[in-house]
Amino acid sequence: MDTVGSELIEDGWFREINEKGFPGQGLMLKVERVLYHSRSEFQDILVFQSSAYGNVLVLDGIVQATERDEFAYQEMITHIPLYAHKNPRKVLVIGGGDGGVLREVVKHKGVVSATLVEIDETVIKLAQKYLPGMACSFNHAKVQVKLQDGFEFLRNVAASDERYDVIITDSSDPEGPAEAFFQKEYFELLHSALNDNGIVIAQASENVWLNLDYIRELVKSAGAVFPRAQYCYTTVPTYTSGQLGLIVCAKNKKSDLEHAIREPTIEEQSQMRYYNTAIHSASFILPTWAYHRIYKST
Amino acid sequence: MDTVGSELIEDGWFREINEKGFPGQGLMLKVERVLYHSRSEFQDILVFQSSAYGNVLVLDGIVQATERDEFAYQEMITHIPLYAHKNPRKVLVIGGGDGGVLREVVKHKGVVSATLVEIDETVIKLAQKYLPGMACSFNHAKVQVKLQDGFEFLRNVAASDERYDVIITDSSDPEGPAEAFFQKEYFELLHSALNDNGIVIAQASENVWLNLDYIRELVKSAGAVFPRAQYCYTTVPTYTSGQLGLIVCAKNKKSDLEHAIREPTIEEQSQMRYYNTAIHSASFILPTWAYHRIYKST
Repeated sequence: MDTVGSELIEDGWFREINEKGFPGQGLMLKVERVLYHSRSEFQDILVFQSSAYGNVLVLDGIVQATERDEFAYQEMITHIPLYAHKNPRKVLVIGGGDGGVLREVVKHKGVVSATLVEIDETVIKLAQKYLPGMACSFNHAKVQVKLQDGFEFLRNVAASDERYDVIITDSSDPEGPAEAFFQKEYFELLHSALNDNGIVIAQASENVWLNLDYIRELVKSAGAVFPRAQYCYTTVPTYTSGQLGLIVCAKNKKSDLEHAIREPTIEEQSQMRYYNTAIHSASFILPTWAYHRIYKST
Repeated sequence: MDTVGSELIEDGWFREINEKGFPGQGLMLKVERVLYHSRSEFQDILVFQSSAYGNVLVLDGIVQATERDEFAYQEMITHIPLYAHKNPRKVLVIGGGDGGVLREVVKHKGVVSATLVEIDETVIKLAQKYLPGMACSFNHAKVQVKLQDGFEFLRNVAASDERYDVIITDSSDPEGPAEAFFQKEYFELLHSALNDNGIVIAQASENVWLNLDYIRELVKSAGAVFPRAQYCYTTVPTYTSGQLGLIVCAKNKKSDLEHAIREPTIEEQSQMRYYNTAIHSASFILPTWAYHRIYKST
């Protein structure tokens, strides 16, 4: 990372440029004012008010969430595994310190506990201050928060008899603190931490337009550990290329990840702006070239 | 439009900013070199070689096509109406001077004639020089090119007994020469120019993330003329928000636009990188909030 945080703001525009991650292209967002900038123990954190997307959280120079479009990501990464699971009761969220995924998890009446493991408390505190629409469930009765490294937490879980029905990896991109979340050992730990019918989903940090070979390798790594590993995506205009891939895996090879096996209740559906069971299935449908490269090439 | 063409290149990066069309957000593409810049009679035209997306065609400051991702747009705007039609023989393309849509149309063995009506010959000539992978079908035996205003051409067709099976409106955005293509009279002309089972598709110039109310009005305008008018989309990383909406309409209310009613032949499918019949249907599936705003709100 060459420049980070407020150095990326020039002439009133924030520029997201990352010559390693997505060379030759960038996103610009007009800045109304910078709300916060610092380097925490773990990463560079910038929060600004944009003119078009509300407040924006930026970690190490990369947009993590904006108030206007965050629901597209939070809803899809949460509800795809939860509605593909028959009866999800215990949910684990790795990362996700902005609270958006937790907000979605607790909409499920059947969930009895939601545990969030976030390494960087600063992210939680800033989200509570600047992204209150996301960070609204930290005090929910079903929620526990652990300020800990996700990898270390999972190692302890794997060594114990604690198991989860759904695990959601809502990490930042694979540079900085989240790097370890994109390797095979991580999928092995996730496998160990799941119940027999468990499902895990991880943001792929890439999309079909950006780094298809990386996605293929990620699906392959996951598929070496899980009997079922698939790619799906959500559309988010402030993520590079306008979409973000998700890798979803099932411990039971009979699990049908591509379809909701439960319908949202009327109350649940009324709280969702992006997710519905039709888009659940549609999010697995890929353009021909991407499908072949991910699933058919060697 | 405040600044156009090469003025949008600074420090080696092209910036697509349009405070009227999509305020507060912008796309950046790294420029290797400018290949062409001029003002034609109709618009400002810029062609540059980018570091990540090949050659890029920009009209009035807005990216129209890049070599790397153009197929996503050309294939979807062409093959959705053509595979939703039982037997498309005569196809009309309004705009599309880059030749990309024509390239896709002539892949259909059943098509006997493909007429392209482009107001700006400069676009055709530049595409032949700088986007040869797109402008490869102008000399195809089935193709006729008319250098004429699309609106005027359609008026003449409506007054004659010439009719088309599929019309594809591949115009630029509704500023500058293409403005008239986004109004109700235009849909009426299209209706007149179609055979009874005819289908028309138009790029909406917007997407659900950008201007949902505009899309709702466009679907409503089209729906006042056609018994069936629907929204679908394709993903294109170099278009604002990473996707572009398409409005597709049928003259026969029994037409099922959401599904291919013919399978591509093996030969046809082998020539397609984006389109397949599954993504044809998936492209009509919308996030909950967008679906309600387009189809259910008043």
